[in-house]
Amino acid sequence: MGKGILHYDFGDKVEVFLLVKSSTKGIASNGKPFLTLMLQDKSGEIEAKLWDASSEDENAYAPQNIVHVCGDVNNYRGRTQLKIRTIRPTNETDTIEVADLLEVAPLKKDVMAEKITQYIFEMKNPSIQRITRHLLKKHHSAFFEYPAATKNHHEYVSGLAYHVVSMLDLSKAISTLYPSLDTDLLYAGVILHDLGKVIELSGPVSTSYTIEGNLLGHITIMVNEIGKAAEQLGITGEEVTILQHLVLSHHGKAEWGSPKPPMIKEAEILHYIDNLDAKMNMLDRALERVKPGEYSERVFALENRSFYKPSFHK
Amino acid sequence: MGKGILHYDFGDKVEVFLLVKSSTKGIASNGKPFLTLMLQDKSGEIEAKLWDASSEDENAYAPQNIVHVCGDVNNYRGRTQLKIRTIRPTNETDTIEVADLLEVAPLKKDVMAEKITQYIFEMKNPSIQRITRHLLKKHHSAFFEYPAATKNHHEYVSGLAYHVVSMLDLSKAISTLYPSLDTDLLYAGVILHDLGKVIELSGPVSTSYTIEGNLLGHITIMVNEIGKAAEQLGITGEEVTILQHLVLSHHGKAEWGSPKPPMIKEAEILHYIDNLDAKMNMLDRALERVKPGEYSERVFALENRSFYKPSFHK
Amino acid sequence: MGKGILHYDFGDKVEVFLLVKSSTKGIASNGKPFLTLMLQDKSGEIEAKLWDASSEDENAYAPQNIVHVCGDVNNYRGRTQLKIRTIRPTNETDTIEVADLLEVAPLKKDVMAEKITQYIFEMKNPSIQRITRHLLKKHHSAFFEYPAATKNHHEYVSGLAYHVVSMLDLSKAISTLYPSLDTDLLYAGVILHDLGKVIELSGPVSTSYTIEGNLLGHITIMVNEIGKAAEQLGITGEEVTILQHLVLSHHGKAEWGSPKPPMIKEAEILHYIDNLDAKMNMLDRALERVKPGEYSERVFALENRSFYKPSFHK
Amino acid sequence: MGKGILHYDFGDKVEVFLLVKSSTKGIASNGKPFLTLMLQDKSGEIEAKLWDASSEDENAYAPQNIVHVCGDVNNYRGRTQLKIRTIRPTNETDTIEVADLLEVAPLKKDVMAEKITQYIFEMKNPSIQRITRHLLKKHHSAFFEYPAATKNHHEYVSGLAYHVVSMLDLSKAISTLYPSLDTDLLYAGVILHDLGKVIELSGPVSTSYTIEGNLLGHITIMVNEIGKAAEQLGITGEEVTILQHLVLSHHGKAEWGSPKPPMIKEAEILHYIDNLDAKMNMLDRALERVKPGEYSERVFALENRSFYKPSFHK
Amino acid sequence: MGKGILHYDFGDKVEVFLLVKSSTKGIASNGKPFLTLMLQDKSGEIEAKLWDASSEDENAYAPQNIVHVCGDVNNYRGRTQLKIRTIRPTNETDTIEVADLLEVAPLKKDVMAEKITQYIFEMKNPSIQRITRHLLKKHHSAFFEYPAATKNHHEYVSGLAYHVVSMLDLSKAISTLYPSLDTDLLYAGVILHDLGKVIELSGPVSTSYTIEGNLLGHITIMVNEIGKAAEQLGITGEEVTILQHLVLSHHGKAEWGSPKPPMIKEAEILHYIDNLDAKMNMLDRALERVKPGEYSERVFALENRSFYKPSFHK
Amino acid sequence: MGKGILHYDFGDKVEVFLLVKSSTKGIASNGKPFLTLMLQDKSGEIEAKLWDASSEDENAYAPQNIVHVCGDVNNYRGRTQLKIRTIRPTNETDTIEVADLLEVAPLKKDVMAEKITQYIFEMKNPSIQRITRHLLKKHHSAFFEYPAATKNHHEYVSGLAYHVVSMLDLSKAISTLYPSLDTDLLYAGVILHDLGKVIELSGPVSTSYTIEGNLLGHITIMVNEIGKAAEQLGITGEEVTILQHLVLSHHGKAEWGSPKPPMIKEAEILHYIDNLDAKMNMLDRALERVKPGEYSERVFALENRSFYKPSFHK
Repeated sequence: MGKGILHYDFGDKVEVFLLVKSSTKGIASNGKPFLTLMLQDKSGEIEAKLWDASSEDENAYAPQNIVHVCGDVNNYRGRTQLKIRTIRPTNETDTIEVADLLEVAPLKKDVMAEKITQYIFEMKNPSIQRITRHLLKKHHSAFFEYPAATKNHHEYVSGLAYHVVSMLDLSKAISTLYPSLDTDLLYAGVILHDLGKVIELSGPVSTSYTIEGNLLGHITIMVNEIGKAAEQLGITGEEVTILQHLVLSHHGKAEWGSPKPPMIKEAEILHYIDNLDAKMNMLDRALERVKPGEYSERVFALENRSFYKPSFHK
Repeated sequence: MGKGILHYDFGDKVEVFLLVKSSTKGIASNGKPFLTLMLQDKSGEIEAKLWDASSEDENAYAPQNIVHVCGDVNNYRGRTQLKIRTIRPTNETDTIEVADLLEVAPLKKDVMAEKITQYIFEMKNPSIQRITRHLLKKHHSAFFEYPAATKNHHEYVSGLAYHVVSMLDLSKAISTLYPSLDTDLLYAGVILHDLGKVIELSGPVSTSYTIEGNLLGHITIMVNEIGKAAEQLGITGEEVTILQHLVLSHHGKAEWGSPKPPMIKEAEILHYIDNLDAKMNMLDRALERVKPGEYSERVFALENRSFYKPSFHK
Repeated sequence: MGKGILHYDFGDKVEVFLLVKSSTKGIASNGKPFLTLMLQDKSGEIEAKLWDASSEDENAYAPQNIVHVCGDVNNYRGRTQLKIRTIRPTNETDTIEVADLLEVAPLKKDVMAEKITQYIFEMKNPSIQRITRHLLKKHHSAFFEYPAATKNHHEYVSGLAYHVVSMLDLSKAISTLYPSLDTDLLYAGVILHDLGKVIELSGPVSTSYTIEGNLLGHITIMVNEIGKAAEQLGITGEEVTILQHLVLSHHGKAEWGSPKPPMIKEAEILHYIDNLDAKMNMLDRALERVKPGEYSERVFALENRSFYKPSFHK
Repeated sequence: MGKGILHYDFGDKVEVFLLVKSSTKGIASNGKPFLTLMLQDKSGEIEAKLWDASSEDENAYAPQNIVHVCGDVNNYRGRTQLKIRTIRPTNETDTIEVADLLEVAPLKKDVMAEKITQYIFEMKNPSIQRITRHLLKKHHSAFFEYPAATKNHHEYVSGLAYHVVSMLDLSKAISTLYPSLDTDLLYAGVILHDLGKVIELSGPVSTSYTIEGNLLGHITIMVNEIGKAAEQLGITGEEVTILQHLVLSHHGKAEWGSPKPPMIKEAEILHYIDNLDAKMNMLDRALERVKPGEYSERVFALENRSFYKPSFHK
Repeated sequence: MGKGILHYDFGDKVEVFLLVKSSTKGIASNGKPFLTLMLQDKSGEIEAKLWDASSEDENAYAPQNIVHVCGDVNNYRGRTQLKIRTIRPTNETDTIEVADLLEVAPLKKDVMAEKITQYIFEMKNPSIQRITRHLLKKHHSAFFEYPAATKNHHEYVSGLAYHVVSMLDLSKAISTLYPSLDTDLLYAGVILHDLGKVIELSGPVSTSYTIEGNLLGHITIMVNEIGKAAEQLGITGEEVTILQHLVLSHHGKAEWGSPKPPMIKEAEILHYIDNLDAKMNMLDRALERVKPGEYSERVFALENRSFYKPSFHK
Repeated sequence: MGKGILHYDFGDKVEVFLLVKSSTKGIASNGKPFLTLMLQDKSGEIEAKLWDASSEDENAYAPQNIVHVCGDVNNYRGRTQLKIRTIRPTNETDTIEVADLLEVAPLKKDVMAEKITQYIFEMKNPSIQRITRHLLKKHHSAFFEYPAATKNHHEYVSGLAYHVVSMLDLSKAISTLYPSLDTDLLYAGVILHDLGKVIELSGPVSTSYTIEGNLLGHITIMVNEIGKAAEQLGITGEEVTILQHLVLSHHGKAEWGSPKPPMIKEAEILHYIDNLDAKMNMLDRALERVKPGEYSERVFALENRSFYKPSFHK
């Protein structure tokens, strides 16, 4: 496949296949229509402008199509941009598929599934275990396909499952150091906390919000799902309320979308673990594009800070 | 019954029956235990200190008992206080009952029930009508007993139902002036918006929060109830999500407990009508104790403001 | 007149008369001057770019001129834009007048004047009645011409009077449900609350802020006017201070421009009624452009929210 | 007169005449009434408790009475308190007067009046000069009696005038360094900025807020006064609006009570000079009670900070 | 030693040795002096009032004395209090020492010192290693004596070192899961982050703030120390600035005392690890006093939340 | 030299020498590269676009080069812009130097140096005097070259020294009116408060932030410098901590970059004097471009306010 589009330097000439992630029509100041294309491969995404776009172009370069582009990697106001020389849709002779161009989690689905199964297996409280297993099974296929978010962190295929697996490993490491933590609650909280995203979001590609997503949000959706699961499984008892509370409170504060703040210990720690894994993911992604002695782009979800890579880091 | 405890002036001597609302033990600076009693009749509540309280006193004056008190109405740091001369529990010869001393809504239950039934009857969308009727029926008895809150507004027996009836009348008046409003959504939103309080709160007397109330809150509880009701009634479709959204968003902002702000017109107006009725209730209660040309006590839920009664008001 | 400019769909060709609301000169990236025209008819306003604009164009298409345009309705970054094919100033043979193109309140001036007169007539307190009548008479002609604001809500000819009439009707409906309200104060507060805008703003077309408007604001201006009116009419007494307070506090909070928050009941309710009518106006305008199942544009004055029109609304 | 009450140390025995500033009745934990007296002499004020207070005591020790006290200066929770051994009202043989016990500004009224007259004399713009002179004359007697505030800073007899004189001198010094400042506006702004306090507050002793003070505030009151003065003097022109703006904006921000922030240079500087003089006054008063190497009491109006007096200060 | 003072129930009679942590004199409402004593043993601290305290009592029960108390454990306004029956200072025959009553970290000093030495040994960057070793050595004795804070978390003897050891273990566990982290920076950051507290605070018992602590704070103090250490060791290069930045930014935000937010990855994670360990410490301490099915006291440093211990926890 | 570039009116043709302050490459909507040049002379700076820029142009018009431009002064979206007709680099025959085009402070370096020396000479406390003199000497040359900031205020050659001199004069004037102020502390605080900028910033031309500047900031840098200076001079005692505190706290609040708020009187006043001089500088610069009766551009550092120049000002 050659190297990814994000690994070229300013001024490099490229000839690559890319997937159209989004396409927005605009009118240039000369009065002619143009397209702002978001093009991606596994390495990430790059913006490109297609000037003087005809309506055929609009169809040919609609989202989810693959295109072949020759062009130059430019620096436009501090952001990388692909200047198109020639562009064409793929045809039958091109041996490229969508899956070749989508960024995916660094772990395979079955590896992740196995790890999560093991964590569920380790749970000792049967109510917690059964509800968690039930809901994971119910949404199994989407859970292993969806990104963890539309942007900011883990925004790739299987990102949601990968985020959960990282958090489970982190939960285990932290519980070893602080043995007063109830790992049943922590593991269940981790597995369920963002599961509502499979209903909140439209899917793994060109992700947008569903109406339920907009009007209720993934937290409320999943709290409801837990309630229904308990009813279906005939489970009653405080475990149901506590699991709902873990999901409800995992954003930490009312302003951040949790109408109740964490009120049990594991809920507080779940919020922390979620944040820590998301931040590590954002920091690594921001800094992997940067050389020692340089500053990263500003990271919106980290209060718009720019991060410095020490010059003594290789 | 004579006049209510709140209608006495500073310096008045009183001899009355009162209901113990709460009792808190403390140690006085002379080292002896004392009780801080919150005593109430229909007119409202008044604080009293019982000095040198024995453990018999503690039992005799526990919450929900009725007591007979002789004493003086005093002003302690700007707040009314009852100075106890003599106090005794009631005995068989006293012809007083709890119901005689509880403040209740100004409308009778059956009158309110009839009004609400009529509003449900006027709904045209069958999904909305059925879910509303189902949930009201399920929680019928508590709904007509509970207060609307533990403090601040409508904090009396049947306060919840009375708040709902006032809001329904207000909804009707406003919809007449702004005919673009969907009265089905408004009426259903009004009836359901605080219904979760029958699970959040412990009951109509000496009201406290349940564990579900603390960990989930009445909004989340009722959003779940709507989901389950729809499932049970076999109702699907956007109406379910919209009803859930109406309840979810009725506090208006994340900081105030609504993880989603109002995103449909009737949700915005529901938030407004809820606020307006609560404020009118608080204002009327604060000002009914005040003479023209005077200021009310500070009202906590109205940003701690004190209100002035114009001297040209009678 | 044909249908309004706002009722065309993307891609429609139009041939219409429009009023120039504003015209801003810019330099295009090709180095040539262009005009950004805000064009309006009764249905609302639309942006258009006039490329390669000569200085004659600048004069011909200055604000308050009427133009004849042939063009296409386009979508530019999610906003409607008019792409100009041909444009020319009107000439004597065109039978179009400014008044034909200005959006006006849905009620006629004399109907509104009569309604307001009736409300003043119903006042019982002579001081309140005389001051209100005096100030309305003093600013009568502007009051019935001016918009209620330069943007956000009721931003059309006679918008101020229409806003006042709606609020008066709302005041009456609410006072019927909460009879402890003093309608004299409510009605006077409604009529006077924004009257200072006739001094704060420049006028009904191409509205901007006057120097008094910028340095003092309509609230302070009207509080002064009430003081002078009372002096002129020889009225003393608490009514004057209370009327000034109603106007002073009607924005509700210091941060929103009221140096004193509402401290009498009717002031608090006035603030509410003002808000409710403004919100209804904004919501109706935002949603009338939207089909069921769609979201409105973001509404700046409603915390930048986008509103959803349920798909079961027709 | 002996040394002031504030200059005694903890443990000192005192025998002094003091003025009752305020008296609040409470009920002690032993059930008996007591009075919390705020007693003052020129050096400042001190709290004292009068236990087992009879209703005769209440009258005898009401505000504005002079009392003779023997007692001990104590430290109660970090605050100085006067423990009463004996207390009695004054009688004819006591040669003490209210004026002997009130703290007054360090400059005499006629000295201050002369300074202010000189500053008005230096004004060059006749409109500004005439309005300032007119309003100062209208409120002359109160202006030289009132404190600048009920607490926080310059809270003593003639405090308002003294605050103004200090600010005038500061204005002159600053204008010398920044000659672009218009001293007419600065001097007029200084003289008028708090003049509304003579209507907002009840008077120089036991100061409280009037109804106009509560409902309108001194800023709005004075803006009105300027408007009426201009009308009476037949002065029109931008000077009137600018003077009103200077007063209106002198608190600097909406949250601090100025519905318009400073929008002319001199208004911004006026806000600064006001703050600087108030802060110097608060700092000096907080630190004059403190020895080198110690911290002052917390100063509420300086964000509740405690200030350190360097040990190398004498 | 018998069980700790915190492990008694309300109503229990106790006869114990306790260390006076603080003693504050007050005047009771009967006019007599009393002492509020904070008494502690290894299990924690409890408040007690000593009524009618003589000046001999004041000396005998000054901070850092040991007392023998017989009394009752009471509940005063929801907080545990010790009601004193008899109290006496210790004498020669009592075989109790201060060290027996001070709460200490759960690990011994030499164990902690060995662990920290090992972490320093693992550092690969010589500049970072030398500065860390130098500063630890310079403040070695205080570092292993001081608490991590005056209240909130790790507020016991050797609390600072224990907090650091826990954070080091946590850093190691997290770095294993996220190998892009530079452990040199993390370990050095952990060891130095709060080391300034040995200058900011007065010592391990009855801890208060020094003047440097108040005027500069432990963050600024340690940033200075790093600068001086580098100068003394002849170390230059970016490592010095980065180490200073790690300490400077470890509170995360300007409002929380860090004038620069974290701008390198390890600084961000250091802030997280610090928080996580502090929170775990606070949560464990708050919940160890609580039975399943109950709520903890409110924890000030966790936004004043109360935490629930699930009833299915043993 | 002719008149400065900022003194031309819209539409004027100019032929001038200008210094390139910054140059940013962009891609125009026609796909060709262009340069956004910030060009300056003593009067200030103006933006210009160079279309179709070759890579030779990029070099020729890099920052710190002088160019000769013929063009027109235009208004682009309310901001002044220079439309380039012809542009060329300077050659040997052009008798223009960088110093001719840089804006400099209105006082000469040696005049300022002499004034500051005099203020240091007036100090009475030898520790304060020696540290101040030592640090000023150490950074002497940069101190008299650097601007006080990269933007907002005193952003010109020698701006830092000029800001300090103005503040010293202001300190003297204020201390005369409030003699309780310690002028040693005030003068030293003024001289040192921003001295860290000579390390935080890159230099007087095309100023940017150094790594130390970004990661530590000028406040922390200078606090360190004071510590090292004291060590080197063998000075101990509270003066060192107090000087560090003056610098540390001079931004006034944690949110503004001071981890400790002012806790000594002179620190509070230093913060004030700093603000006042910066504001005067910003106000004068904003208003000197404005005619009477007009509003200035919005001033970002003054809460984005626009200021009005009264029409009666000349």
